[in-house]
Amino acid sequence: MTDIKLNHLAIVVDDMEAALRFWRESLGLAQAGKIESVPAEAVDIAFLRLGDAHIELIQPTADDSGVAKYLAKRGAGMHHLCLDVPDLDAKLNELRAAGYVLINEQPRERDGRRYAFIHPESTGGVLLELYERV
Amino acid sequence: MTDIKLNHLAIVVDDMEAALRFWRESLGLAQAGKIESVPAEAVDIAFLRLGDAHIELIQPTADDSGVAKYLAKRGAGMHHLCLDVPDLDAKLNELRAAGYVLINEQPRERDGRRYAFIHPESTGGVLLELYERV
Repeated sequence: MTDIKLNHLAIVVDDMEAALRFWRESLGLAQAGKIESVPAEAVDIAFLRLGDAHIELIQPTADDSGVAKYLAKRGAGMHHLCLDVPDLDAKLNELRAAGYVLINEQPRERDGRRYAFIHPESTGGVLLELYERV
Repeated sequence: MTDIKLNHLAIVVDDMEAALRFWRESLGLAQAGKIESVPAEAVDIAFLRLGDAHIELIQPTADDSGVAKYLAKRGAGMHHLCLDVPDLDAKLNELRAAGYVLINEQPRERDGRRYAFIHPESTGGVLLELYERV
């Protein structure tokens, strides 16, 4: 019935090194690549393998970024869920037709993927990202 | 390096029917089984298939339950992450030795699984459940 799969679960952390000590050193998840800086979003990110999917650790690097404000307001923890879908445009059209709130009315593109965010008010409180490989 | 896998991602919702309309009807995840009442924890739960894992929707059925208090304080959204580990006792011993805070010092058992929760202060804000099939 469904080809929808977990792509990644993003966790906002206030201390990347401490988070890696837990998830990588003690829990035992393998890190995929190194810590990467994303200046455009004022975050550092690190990926940990979880089967075919990943856990993404996100640490804000500037106090006025969106993620920093989230961290200040909500505290560290799970931030968004990203699922792979086979046909992103069709899925967004279906969701829009059903009255759900899309944060990105049109998919964006980055690193060989098209993606769009769905507003938490539509999902039952989960910031949901949908991915499609291009 | 790791045999750790996603078992389920639990989401607390304030309206199970609305949540199922989104995740099942519109997004297209298949529901596994029916909505189930768990009187001991004063919740209704429903599972949606996500590859080999599940999304678990949890709705409190009494105002004074732990999950109801979470919902009142934090709002609907992602509640906990559950991972399958190959050797739960060994993993808990490692985590304890590294100084992390276990909510369940000894694993509990239910429905053919042994499980224990790790405190969010150890993980970077994520309530983490570890499962082992018995």
